[in-house]
Amino acid sequence: MILTKPTSELYMDYSAHMKKIADVRYSAAVLQWDQETYLPPKGAEFRGQQIATLSEIAHEWAIEPALGELLQELSQRGDLTDNQQRNVQLSLEDYTKQKKFTPAFIRQLSEASSRAFHSWISARNANSFAVFSGELSNMVQLKKEEAEIAGYTGHRYNALLDQYEKGCTVALLDNVFGSVRQPLKDLLDRIGRQPQVDDSFLRGFYPHQQQWDFGMGLIRQMGFDFEAGRQDLSEHPFTTNFSSQDVRITTRVDEQDFNNMTWSCIHETGHALYEQGLPADQYGLPLGEYASLSIHESQSRLWENNVGRSRSWWSTIYPRLQAVFPERLGSIPAEAFYRGINKVEPSLIRTEADEVSYHFHVMIRYELEKNLIEGTLATTDIPAWWNEKYAAWLGVHVPDDKRGCLQDVHWSHGSFGYFPTYSLGSFYAAQLFIAAENQDNTIKPGVASGDTSALLRWLRQHIHQYGRRFTSEELCARATGKTLDVSYFLGYLLDKYANIYNF
Amino acid sequence: MILTKPTSELYMDYSAHMKKIADVRYSAAVLQWDQETYLPPKGAEFRGQQIATLSEIAHEWAIEPALGELLQELSQRGDLTDNQQRNVQLSLEDYTKQKKFTPAFIRQLSEASSRAFHSWISARNANSFAVFSGELSNMVQLKKEEAEIAGYTGHRYNALLDQYEKGCTVALLDNVFGSVRQPLKDLLDRIGRQPQVDDSFLRGFYPHQQQWDFGMGLIRQMGFDFEAGRQDLSEHPFTTNFSSQDVRITTRVDEQDFNNMTWSCIHETGHALYEQGLPADQYGLPLGEYASLSIHESQSRLWENNVGRSRSWWSTIYPRLQAVFPERLGSIPAEAFYRGINKVEPSLIRTEADEVSYHFHVMIRYELEKNLIEGTLATTDIPAWWNEKYAAWLGVHVPDDKRGCLQDVHWSHGSFGYFPTYSLGSFYAAQLFIAAENQDNTIKPGVASGDTSALLRWLRQHIHQYGRRFTSEELCARATGKTLDVSYFLGYLLDKYANIYNF
Repeated sequence: MILTKPTSELYMDYSAHMKKIADVRYSAAVLQWDQETYLPPKGAEFRGQQIATLSEIAHEWAIEPALGELLQELSQRGDLTDNQQRNVQLSLEDYTKQKKFTPAFIRQLSEASSRAFHSWISARNANSFAVFSGELSNMVQLKKEEAEIAGYTGHRYNALLDQYEKGCTVALLDNVFGSVRQPLKDLLDRIGRQPQVDDSFLRGFYPHQQQWDFGMGLIRQMGFDFEAGRQDLSEHPFTTNFSSQDVRITTRVDEQDFNNMTWSCIHETGHALYEQGLPADQYGLPLGEYASLSIHESQSRLWENNVGRSRSWWSTIYPRLQAVFPERLGSIPAEAFYRGINKVEPSLIRTEADEVSYHFHVMIRYELEKNLIEGTLATTDIPAWWNEKYAAWLGVHVPDDKRGCLQDVHWSHGSFGYFPTYSLGSFYAAQLFIAAENQDNTIKPGVASGDTSALLRWLRQHIHQYGRRFTSEELCARATGKTLDVSYFLGYLLDKYANIYNF
Repeated sequence: MILTKPTSELYMDYSAHMKKIADVRYSAAVLQWDQETYLPPKGAEFRGQQIATLSEIAHEWAIEPALGELLQELSQRGDLTDNQQRNVQLSLEDYTKQKKFTPAFIRQLSEASSRAFHSWISARNANSFAVFSGELSNMVQLKKEEAEIAGYTGHRYNALLDQYEKGCTVALLDNVFGSVRQPLKDLLDRIGRQPQVDDSFLRGFYPHQQQWDFGMGLIRQMGFDFEAGRQDLSEHPFTTNFSSQDVRITTRVDEQDFNNMTWSCIHETGHALYEQGLPADQYGLPLGEYASLSIHESQSRLWENNVGRSRSWWSTIYPRLQAVFPERLGSIPAEAFYRGINKVEPSLIRTEADEVSYHFHVMIRYELEKNLIEGTLATTDIPAWWNEKYAAWLGVHVPDDKRGCLQDVHWSHGSFGYFPTYSLGSFYAAQLFIAAENQDNTIKPGVASGDTSALLRWLRQHIHQYGRRFTSEELCARATGKTLDVSYFLGYLLDKYANIYNF
């Protein structure tokens, strides 16, 4: 029956099926967004069930044999457009991957994750990794099984890395991290020997409403379309979307810390601009989705750091900021502000780290996960291993597990292989930003005048519009002329911090 | 296979299936809530598709043959508890009803409703019923077909009435409305001959934030559990819920009109207290659902009018209100306030009507729908018919369609048979409130001191806890000793307004 249908009709069937899956997935995302922003506490239990039911439907539909047949047949047809062909190819890849996992295994993972999450919460409350160790060990075991089911060549961890970043391997990351570790260490040491920067003025009383209003102004200025999205408050800032026409970001406001809200706004807006730039007519299809996690992160980091911590961008914004908080910032010169927001200081918490030391946090997690998945590190040994690495690589003493190996939620979710995409994002961001400035000479003066529309246009054109059409490396090569080259990132850091720290 | 399973296992299967349907329905409700409160405008199109997909899933699951077999088998088993038996019986009724409609017909209705809604919007913008007439006529035709498919005895309209209020018929409503029409007309005339009440102080500037805060205070005082619900803003106030543990209400704030926000808060909280009082352990099952629309409305009206427009309740609250708006209300005595919020004056808009004239709005709609569905009135003749009735029954001149037959959204949704439940709600409310006061002598002094917890307890005990276990009339009889008797309502109004208007 399928064999006699014209290609256009088959493609319509495929596309309709995918859109319905997307409807259910995005519905679950609405429920999750609500869970993080507005859900009253007693609603949590039924909400969990509702999200689980939607996820089950989406997964069932994604592995329906009829979809597999449709994709197989479509992939044989010669009369698809390039974009259609790519959609079918990617959907077939997804289908084949997902098909490997039985619903029973998916449920097992989901239940383990739910248990591990609660155990992680308890462990944090008790400030004791030992509370979490058992559930984590169970999760690691499941992730090993998952890797075996998914299949891999080389290292077993490759199977997990590939889920977040297609094509990413231990070999690749060993190489990338190997090239940055020593230069970053040297940079940290050099900075450490210089007179330190004062950023104390960023703490102190910054009232909620003024922070919020200022943040909303930044988001608007960056080009976020408030007709196609909104910002709300949540405990942990995040970006989600229910189509490219409805992108939600959240922030948190700490009245004692101006940093917190501001760079979370900028970071999440970077993610959001990407989602708003994805082609709406590809809703539910691979070409309507983001390319990869590292590319997603490259967008948030580019705005957060390359733009949002630049002297140039703040040159026009800072006087406005001073006018909002005259008591706190009226006497702080622009240059002191710029240095303050770029203060480098090795510390314990990843999410609060500066641009240089940040990547040691990631590298430690990467090495740790690699060892866990290959089985050379037992979960019970994690705290000791962690604390030793923090001492050796960052020179900081970890006083307790909460500020140590219990700080991130990722492992309780089973997200092994996720952390490296954060660093890759920064590395891509530096390379993309330099390419953008070189290719369009209105970008630099634009940023300096607070008008980043030319930059956004460049990103739309070279990254956003393609959705998942290209891999991270293909996108990078097409946009910048070469695949990832960490020397851009290292060069950017060295330039910037030599200037700030006067060496 | 089903035949050999023990009853407890079959009941578990049934219950699990129903809970999954509820998960999907409540998920759709979350998406709808978001649509009315926070959705950015460009998100509307995909949101519509997402809700439609969820509704399709829920409907498919609700008419699955396997569910029918399960229900048939369970209804033959003798070893169910009373509550289980009632759940099965009600689910089988629902199943049998829904099963009559083909998915094609459901889709036809849903598409017609979507077209009719947009046409209604256009008609309102153009202030011309003629714009809406064609789509409405199509909708009426479909509702006639729906009635034929559903089946009925007596009047065709009975089939539609029954969907909103089980057992409700033209004969019953003709009787009920027949008994109230003349007494209400007499009351209106009598009030009209007396010196009129001044309520001008309710308009004027009441700032947004103070109104909001005051409304939140009322809601809290009424016993709304903010751990199991929240209030937000929307264009039109409504109540929705995603379980009895997550009940959402909305309000609107008009800075020029204190009435608007206040009684919408009280009304919606009345609905919400009912939903929060439904048994959580019956999630997804009939006994976890409200009894009927008229009983739901009886809860909102009881709080809105019998409590919320009473001299007694305001006696402790009014001084607080005066303190919030000293400029507007400082010089208005409590008695003048009480009379102002109970001003009776026939007018054009149903949702703004007082307690007496309100029911003429409903009766006009009831007669009109009856005629439409029996085919004795053509849609093109609606405006003339409407305007004539408003002149005859309420003595008001309808200046245009927007303030006439285009004012309500209901028909565009295909909701024929819905309006009567509003009046039934008021009638039940009066009877319930009197019974409550008679049965528990702490209720009256409680209301007078602003503590309505005894009243809420009575409602929980006599109405809320039962879910759909009893019909409206059964609930009413069990709670008050007799089925609906409109003399309670009429007596309440006569007492109240004779006092306010001095006759």
